[in-house]
Parts: sequence; structure tokens; C-alpha cells
Amino acid sequence: MRALVYQGPGKKALVEHAKPAIQNATDAIVKITKTTICGTDLHILKGDVATCTAGRILGHEGVGIIESVGSGVTTFAPGARVLISCITACGRCDACRNSMYSHCSTGGWILGNTIDGTQAEFVRVPHADTSLYALPDNIDEEDAVMLSDILPTGYECGVLNGQVAPGSTIAIVGSGPIGLAALLTAQFYTPVQIIMVDLDDNRLEVARSFGATDVVNTTDGKARDAILQLTGGRGVDTAIEAVGIPATFQLCTEIVAPGGVVANIGVHGKKVDLHLETLWSHNVTITTGLVDTVSTPMLLRTVQSKRIDPKRLITHRFKLTDVIAAYETFGQAASTKALKVILEA
Amino acid sequence: MRALVYQGPGKKALVEHAKPAIQNATDAIVKITKTTICGTDLHILKGDVATCTAGRILGHEGVGIIESVGSGVTTFAPGARVLISCITACGRCDACRNSMYSHCSTGGWILGNTIDGTQAEFVRVPHADTSLYALPDNIDEEDAVMLSDILPTGYECGVLNGQVAPGSTIAIVGSGPIGLAALLTAQFYTPVQIIMVDLDDNRLEVARSFGATDVVNTTDGKARDAILQLTGGRGVDTAIEAVGIPATFQLCTEIVAPGGVVANIGVHGKKVDLHLETLWSHNVTITTGLVDTVSTPMLLRTVQSKRIDPKRLITHRFKLTDVIAAYETFGQAASTKALKVILEA
Amino acid sequence: MRALVYQGPGKKALVEHAKPAIQNATDAIVKITKTTICGTDLHILKGDVATCTAGRILGHEGVGIIESVGSGVTTFAPGARVLISCITACGRCDACRNSMYSHCSTGGWILGNTIDGTQAEFVRVPHADTSLYALPDNIDEEDAVMLSDILPTGYECGVLNGQVAPGSTIAIVGSGPIGLAALLTAQFYTPVQIIMVDLDDNRLEVARSFGATDVVNTTDGKARDAILQLTGGRGVDTAIEAVGIPATFQLCTEIVAPGGVVANIGVHGKKVDLHLETLWSHNVTITTGLVDTVSTPMLLRTVQSKRIDPKRLITHRFKLTDVIAAYETFGQAASTKALKVILEA
Amino acid sequence: MRALVYQGPGKKALVEHAKPAIQNATDAIVKITKTTICGTDLHILKGDVATCTAGRILGHEGVGIIESVGSGVTTFAPGARVLISCITACGRCDACRNSMYSHCSTGGWILGNTIDGTQAEFVRVPHADTSLYALPDNIDEEDAVMLSDILPTGYECGVLNGQVAPGSTIAIVGSGPIGLAALLTAQFYTPVQIIMVDLDDNRLEVARSFGATDVVNTTDGKARDAILQLTGGRGVDTAIEAVGIPATFQLCTEIVAPGGVVANIGVHGKKVDLHLETLWSHNVTITTGLVDTVSTPMLLRTVQSKRIDPKRLITHRFKLTDVIAAYETFGQAASTKALKVILEA
Repeated sequence: MRALVYQGPGKKALVEHAKPAIQNATDAIVKITKTTICGTDLHILKGDVATCTAGRILGHEGVGIIESVGSGVTTFAPGARVLISCITACGRCDACRNSMYSHCSTGGWILGNTIDGTQAEFVRVPHADTSLYALPDNIDEEDAVMLSDILPTGYECGVLNGQVAPGSTIAIVGSGPIGLAALLTAQFYTPVQIIMVDLDDNRLEVARSFGATDVVNTTDGKARDAILQLTGGRGVDTAIEAVGIPATFQLCTEIVAPGGVVANIGVHGKKVDLHLETLWSHNVTITTGLVDTVSTPMLLRTVQSKRIDPKRLITHRFKLTDVIAAYETFGQAASTKALKVILEA
Repeated sequence: MRALVYQGPGKKALVEHAKPAIQNATDAIVKITKTTICGTDLHILKGDVATCTAGRILGHEGVGIIESVGSGVTTFAPGARVLISCITACGRCDACRNSMYSHCSTGGWILGNTIDGTQAEFVRVPHADTSLYALPDNIDEEDAVMLSDILPTGYECGVLNGQVAPGSTIAIVGSGPIGLAALLTAQFYTPVQIIMVDLDDNRLEVARSFGATDVVNTTDGKARDAILQLTGGRGVDTAIEAVGIPATFQLCTEIVAPGGVVANIGVHGKKVDLHLETLWSHNVTITTGLVDTVSTPMLLRTVQSKRIDPKRLITHRFKLTDVIAAYETFGQAASTKALKVILEA
Repeated sequence: MRALVYQGPGKKALVEHAKPAIQNATDAIVKITKTTICGTDLHILKGDVATCTAGRILGHEGVGIIESVGSGVTTFAPGARVLISCITACGRCDACRNSMYSHCSTGGWILGNTIDGTQAEFVRVPHADTSLYALPDNIDEEDAVMLSDILPTGYECGVLNGQVAPGSTIAIVGSGPIGLAALLTAQFYTPVQIIMVDLDDNRLEVARSFGATDVVNTTDGKARDAILQLTGGRGVDTAIEAVGIPATFQLCTEIVAPGGVVANIGVHGKKVDLHLETLWSHNVTITTGLVDTVSTPMLLRTVQSKRIDPKRLITHRFKLTDVIAAYETFGQAASTKALKVILEA
Repeated sequence: MRALVYQGPGKKALVEHAKPAIQNATDAIVKITKTTICGTDLHILKGDVATCTAGRILGHEGVGIIESVGSGVTTFAPGARVLISCITACGRCDACRNSMYSHCSTGGWILGNTIDGTQAEFVRVPHADTSLYALPDNIDEEDAVMLSDILPTGYECGVLNGQVAPGSTIAIVGSGPIGLAALLTAQFYTPVQIIMVDLDDNRLEVARSFGATDVVNTTDGKARDAILQLTGGRGVDTAIEAVGIPATFQLCTEIVAPGGVVANIGVHGKKVDLHLETLWSHNVTITTGLVDTVSTPMLLRTVQSKRIDPKRLITHRFKLTDVIAAYETFGQAASTKALKVILEA
């Protein structure tokens, strides 16, 4: 089969690769129909993710058709259309029993990281019963691919951790795919003010069309003042960090109101300064987290009932055989205006 | 009347001072019977608290007898025995309506800070109806003084923010009065492991007698390893910071288990490093907060019913006229082994 | 002034009545600009509310202008435009400190019940600082009147108690004003299925236009089966009772899924059967409650930001001098299709 | 092997029975070392549990040693000492993913009900990975047997559903084994007043020795008045129903304070009257539920750390071969003063 393989920092190739086979009784082999590229794949290619080594098939998102299942799989049978979660969960360990699948003792984020992933014609999914989700007929595959990672990440790490609530005010710092996913799902809770922050006017325009009430271009370095002004000096109830650099995290801590929450989604590569000399008495909560994908069934229901339209995040579509071009487009988002790119296998 | 007055950095004096008078309809004048000294008073004396200026009577804790009330006070009458909360709350502003009294728009921590405090024979308490608590007859005054600040602070900022729960494991970094208050109130929730951390063996011994299951002297710089070993490598569900310096905060972030909470109580004077490059995927929550004293009625009930014995925190007793000596004793805790000192007016 | 006075069971009259005066320091006198009639007023007129005696001015909803305030009122001054809460809260008693204003020791539902109400040119509002809300300029008075009682009741007793959540399924039994208020505010949380139940097709059509996904006319006595069919046999996560009779309450307990909630809003006049012989193992929660109106500030923000349009509940408008005709219209809702009627003073 | 078999209403026998065998890949066969009898077993014998038919081996509690496991079991191996949960959970269905194991689509309470149970030398446990718990060496088997059902039931259905909190007041109506289990675990949360109610003075004395602050013998029919007097007329924050008859449920609804919770544990055989004509405005929550046993790992930790001593519930010990005598003793608790009886296999 064809597969996109990481070949060490800066290198990747579309190669012919052996088709995966069942290894454990709880495995399933899924024939990929649609997959996509994540910002994390770019991190891997930069060599920033030590756990992912050369020779790995990338990709942790996708939908497909069950090809075969191990003897211990009871929920799915060959032919079933399924959504692949970016998080593999055994359903048995302490972490899974506490709904923290991201820290599953034999799972978590392993696809396209420590085991071969989804940017291929087939993928082996461990713990299939608790890591795949049946796709109802009336759900579009493109919508579904957005539920492998980006929607649950924006929702769980941003919206739920951020305690977005009816009538509240929020700011989302970063209007890339993940910030926009937080924007879409934040509206489940009817906040009254949603301020989107970014350096890119195009993305801010997209944000506005997705429901932002206000946008702030932070190019001038005055985002803090702009946000305080927009909130009458009070700051926001929830500040969602969706970039992953010190400056944006610090901005979040400067614009959060007393009693508010800073919910970090961004993948950080270095430490940040936390100004406890002012924050100690500010009654704030700061959260971090890898997505658990416990919200996947709920998100599927909101797609089915047309409460949300995740496909809006998709800007480009490619065949899997054009995956190298797809990476180019996705990697140069500023010029291509790419958000999510779909790969059809 | 006699009062302890701050006279600028490094200077204080017991002086004769005019007795306070009712200024607003919601004020009460309270004759102090017992008060105490807080670590924050030492901060003020170092000049670290900019809001507190020379000439201020210090002190934000105490019990006493109502001397007189303004025309708008409906809950209390002269002669009533009352507990004075360190936090003044109007009960009407947005913050108070949301039970965040610490950020009351006309209150918060003002006693002994921006208005005259309790280390005197009399004190004026604004918003008396919502800032004083009736003291039941069967509550000892010394127990009650511990409920002005230290017990609700340990409980709300440490135990409640820290989500201490039955069966959980916790570490409290800092075994001074505030860490010990957290230790006493954490036991309301029956954690199974309580690790106390300090540099002072005497305080660790006190901690053990107060219910700690393990103690770690961090003098050797290996507290992190010791705590991970005590928890089977997993870390603790709740790490309570009760010191207020970068090293102890960082220790808390290093010993918290995935899914756990770092609850900051310490008053910090400078920024800390937050290692988001590892914490971003660790599913942790970090909280800060000035106490709201919303738990005061509950704490009074636990004292009344002998579920807790706050008096155990008291090591020394003085007359108000010996307040200078009391400050000496309290300020040199390492040698005097002082925890809380009582001042009798 | 003109006022609508209850004169014993079955009797009411628009009479000339003495203007109210300040009685306590915390009182305000409000000149009514708009008020309305509540289903509870009809209960009183039937003689069903023992606490309300002949001679009482009815009405517990309204907006107006502050005419005068007592010496203890600090938040409002004459001339301020205010929303009157149906619940009077002292802000000082145990219940108020716990945000349960409905059980305020000197307040709760007293307006138009145990003290004179709002269907008059002026009303005295006790505990004004914590029972009135400033009306921002950009809020329409008709929208605001809906926030005195009906919106917070539907929201707090139905939606919040019912734990409506994104992706959940709900049924609201009763499509009168209060059921429709629950319908409007339930959508703050993006449930995926909202089934409205009533005997009146007109009200069900209104419900559909307000956002119901399904409607069930229960005239045929088969509502239970219809709702189970609509939910694939599972039942609903939340069943909101908005009628107040045994049959509708029992229906709610029959259609709630395991793990679900029955949230009672209805005012009941007699006991109901609770079938614990089946429900004991069904993992259900049943809630009751008089509204606390703690959500009023939040609701005002959702109106300001156009997230909700409460005016849609208003079907008829009258002058206060035509209050008797307004009662006729409101009392014969089946034929007049009345929901809420506005009285302009 | 020897097994206690239900032979239709009123009939049971200790018989020789075929040893169970693995049927599904996720099964385990456990050699029972200790088991016990539950009040529910007596219900079955009366013919009150329609799902349990003649020929069934009774019993849903116990500890033992793994004899063999199916090919899909990954957590346990032969020789492991395990606790058997009364609730079987697949860990994969919607209910299990939402931690509501009691409503597992292929599990729930099936042991000793719809499949053969634990009052035998061996038992087959389906879904072994998620229905058995490894027993640490330092946990006594008798303590552990109490964690199969009675402790998690008292804790989850009584204490957690009842929202028992530090400083709160509670009443537990029924001082049998399940009420006493609620009493033991309620103390995890440090309520200040715990009122135990029963008809049997012996059980009330036991309750007092287990930590009750007050006891009420309801023989005189005046329990309501007594409890209101003990609580200063206010009622209790939490009323736990641990009997299962209309009178005790109604008592709970009469003694619960505004804002409080009635948590039902009792297995009811008939409907009860719910006086919504008074309760509708009382802001109460009523909960029902079969235990989910999600708290089992936490309870094991509290036993390991000596925070609780469940063995205190055991009054009698028998060999499995004397199971008929054990039933006699357990069934005549009023005269034998039996609480829990241990059966050693």
C-alpha cells in the first residue's frame, strides 16, 4: 500500500509499505477513506517530537471501513464505517476508567507517533472497541474527519476546561484550525462575547464568519489593551491559548478576569513566565491537557443534528497520492490560506 | 486606645490612637478581645505591600464584642460576640453575588491594609452584616481567631481549589501556619496520603502530629524524588503551594500527577517558570486565589461540633500591650517555634 | 394611584389605592412602566395561595423608574431604570449567602403575595440593592419584563436543574409561557433534540417556531409512546415538567432515560405518585424549586447581545387601566392564544 | 462443586452443581474464598425479583482467586487474588463509557440474578477486566467482601448522590447493613451531624459506635418531629433512604431542608406518595440509583490506608457448607443481631 513515511527531521516520502496486520486480539485493520494533516505532523517533521522516529507512517486522524478485526473485538465487524480517534484507549486502565484516555497506560496518542498512522491506505488500530466510533449513515466523511482530533481538542481542552458558560465572555488567542475549532464548539454554550486574536487578517475574517463577535490583530503588540477595552476593562471569563508560544500564553494570563480561566491548548516547546506576583491574588485557574476524546459521541450527535458544520474548516482537498503537495499547501498556510486539508485515499 | 501602627518599612509602634467611629450606615465598631499576627503583616513591615501606607493600624484577624452599629446594620446589635473576617464583603456587587468576596468592589482585603485594622482595642468594620459572623456561645475565642483568615485560606485556596477528595493523595509544600491550616482542613475529605514538605524538622513533627502520613525535609534539594518515591512514581493528585517562592511552586508542578491540581496559596513576590513544554500534555490544573471566606459558616460548624481543633495552631499568647514582643516571637519562628501567636486586648 | 387589588377568591378590582412609602432603610419605591400577569396570579384569584389575602395588590413582575430610596440603599438612585425581580433577597441571611434567594429569611416571593405588588403605578421593593437590577439603555422594556420571573424560572428550575447539556435530548411537558421560556433558554446549551408536549396545537406550533425539533400533542394519551419512539426507545436526558398536575409529572418520570433528570417547574396543588418500584434502579434525579433569580445578570447579558429575544413570548398589550380586560385575555388563553400580556402603566 | 441454588419462591438448597467454564473470551473463572449474603438475596427468595428464575446460583459478592481466564482478558492471570464487583461492566457501551456501569448493555447486576452467582465454590465472571479488581496483599479478605456491593452502594447511592459535604447535616433512615455502610462512608466528608433512624435499638447502638451523632427510634411514629428538633427546625441537608418502603421515603421528604437532597438507596416494591404540593417550592433534589461501583478503587485505597474498617459490619461467620444456617441467621436479624455474615468457601 501507499503510505506517507517520516524519514527523520525534515524528510518524508510517499512510499510503498507493507499493509498492516492484526497483532493483538483487540486490534482492527481499517481501510482509510479520508484522512488529513495536523499541525502536530509538522512538529514531527521538524524533529520536535522525540517519541516519533524515522520510518513511521504519520497521521492520527481519519475515517474508513473496517477491513478485519481481532478475536477480542466485539463492537465492530468488517464493513463498518468508522471514525478513528487520535487517542487510543484501552478502556481498562486507571486513566481510562477515569475518562482520561489521553493517559491510557497502553494507548494515548500513539497513532502516527509510536505506531504507524493513518496517512496510508490501511491502518492498524489497537483497542478498537474503545478507540473507534461507528459513523451513522447521515454523517458526511469530511465532517467526521474533523472529529478525529481537532474538534474534540478545541472542545475539551479549550471550551470544557475553559468553563465557557452562557452569558460569559471569552477570547481565543490563535485563529488557526484549532482555535477555530474552539470557536465553533464554544458556541454550544452561548457566550455573549467571543474575541478572536491572530496575526493574520484572513484568519480573523474566517473567525468572524464562524461567529466571533470581535477580532483583534495582535501585529501591533497591543492585543492586551484592545481586549481590555473590548471588555470594559474587566478582561474575559475564559482565555483559550491556541498557539503554543510564551507570548500568547502570557497574553492569556493578562486578559483573564478575576475568577476566570486560562485554558491552554497550544503545544509548547519551551517554558513560559507565570507572573504569580500579580496572579496569586487574582483567583484564576490555568488548565493544560492533551485531548481525551471523551466528547466524540456527543460531537457526532451535534453533527448529525446540524448543530455544527465542521466541514467549514476544510479549505483544500487532495488525493492521498498527492500527499506531498498537500503538506506543501498546509505548511504554507499564510500564503495558501489553508486551514484543514483533506486527503482522499 | 492602644494600637499597633505601621510607620513605614521596617518600623512599627504601639501608640495611643483615636478610637474609630461609625462612618457609613453599614459600619460596626467592634471592641477587640483577641487578635493575632499574620505572615502578611510581616510582608507589610518589609515594605512589600504597596497599598498599605505609614500610619495604618495593622491586623486583619480577630474576635470581639459589637460596640455600636450604623443605621443600616440589621443582623448585629451592640453586645454581640463576633468573628471578624479578614475579607470585607458588601454582599451587593457582582463579585459578592458570585461568592468571590475577595474581589468585592468596595471591600476585599482592606482591614489592616487600606483601612485601620484589628491590632488595637477597637476596629471599624465596614459592611458589617456581611463581614462579621455571630459567634455561638460554645466556640472558644482562640479557636475563632483562627477562622478570621488562616483556616478559610488553607481550606478554600488549598483544599477546595485543590479538589482534595476521599482516597486522593496530596502534598502540602510549606508547613508554616497556612500549610498546617490546609493540613487540618484537607482531612475533612479523607485523603489517604498527606505528604508535608518543609525545611524545618520541628514544623514537620508538628505536621505529623496534625495528621500528615509522610513528611519530607527538602533541605537536601531532593524533595521531588522523595515525593515521587512515596507515591510509587505517580505523583500526587493535589499539590498545595504554601510558601510563595519560585522553587516551591516549581516543585509542586513537578510532583503533580496527570489529571491533578496545583493549588497556590503562597503570596508571591516574583514570577515563576512554568514548564509548559512538559506540562502542556499533562492535564493539570493550576489555581490561584485570595481567600473569599465563604466557608466561614461551615468552618464554625466544624469547630462547634469538635471536628477540628484550630487552637492547636497557637503556640504563644501575649497581651496586646506586649504586641512588640509578640511580633519578635512570631518573626523569629525558626528559633521560637512559633506558629500562631494570640494577642489579648 | 391605580392598582389591581385581590378581593378574595374569584374577586379582583382596579381601584384607587394609597401610593406606597419607604418603610425600611433598604426599601426603594419604583414607578412602574411595564408589568405583566403571571399564571400564579390566576392561582391566587382561585383562592389557591393561602399566603395571599384580600386587599393585596397583585403582581410580581415589572420594570420601572426609581422614585425614591431608603437611607441604606447604595446601589440605586432616583431616576434609575430598573428591573424588578419576582424574588426579594436580603443578601445577608444563610439562604441568600448560598445563592438560594427564593428562601431568603425576610424575602423570597413576597411581592404581590404577602406585600403589595407591581400591578399598580408604584411599588415598594424591600432589600432594593439585592432585589432590583439596573437596566442597560440598550435593553427593551418588554424584553426586560420577561426577566422578572418567567425567563429565570424556565432557565433555573428547568434548564439548570435539568442539567441540559450540549448534545443532550430533552422534553418539555407543557408549552405555556413557562415551558416556552424553558425552551428558549435550553438552547443556550445546544441540546440536539427538543421535544415539546402540550394539548394545544397552537402552542406546539409556537414551540416549533421557537426551536423545538419535535412536538407531541398529548390529547390522545399516548405521549409516552410517542416520545420513546422519537428517542429510539431510550427516553430523554432531561424531562422538564411545566404544567403542575400529576399526569404530566408522571409522564416525565416515564420518559426519562437512565441517568437522566426530571426538573419540575410546575406549581402543584396535590401529591403525585412516584413509582419507585421501577425508578429505584433507574439512576434518575428529580428536582423541585422556586426560582432564585440568581441568573438575572446573565440573562440580561444574553438579551443585550441578542442571543435571546424574550419579547417573542408577548402576544397582547394593554394599558394598566385595562388590566381587567388583560386578565380576561390571559385567563382564556386557549381561545385568545395569549402567552404573555404586557401592561403599560 | 457445592452451590446455593434458588429453587423458586421460598425454596433454596445447597446442591452439587457443575463447575462453571469460560464461555466468552472476556470471561474469568474465580475460585471463591469468601462470600456473603445480601438483603437482595432474601428478596429473590420471596419471589420479588422476576428476572431471577429457579435453578440460579445466588450471590453477587465475594473475593477469590483467578482459576482461568479467556483469551481476551489482559489484566488478570490465574492465581491473582481478586475482588468481584456486584456489577458487571463491559467498559465499551455508552453506559460504561459514561461511568454508569449499572446500566451496562451486557452487564449490570447479572451475577446471582440472570447468570449464576458467587455462593458457590467457583463463579464465572463476564467482562473480567472491567468487573474484577486486584486485591493488594495488605487488604483483608473480609474487608474486601464488604466492597463487592454494600460499601460502594452506601457510598455512591447514599453519600455521593446525597452530596454529603463538610459541615453538613445528614439523616440516614434505616440502620441495617446498607444504612451503616452509608454511615461509615459519609464520614469521608466530615458532616457535623449524623442522625441514624431505625426501629431497632440494637442497630441504633451499633450506629452510635460507628459515628452517629444522634439516633432516633422511630417506633413511636414521631421521627419527623424528633429530627426537626435535633436540627433546630431546619431539617437536614441530606436524607438517605436505606429501607425501601413508602413510610421511610416519605419521612425523608419531610425532614429535608430547603436546598437539600433525598438520596434513595432502598429497593422499593411499590409506589410512594410524593407531596409535590409542598415540595414544588422547597428546592429539593431526589435521587435514585443502582450502584455503579465506580468508587471501588477509591474504597480499596481507604481500606488499605486504614481510613475505614468495613469488617466492623460482619457479625457472623460460616463455612459455605453451612450456608443454610447462615441464611437463617441473616434472615432473623432482629433476634440474631446479624448485620453481614461471611461465608468461607
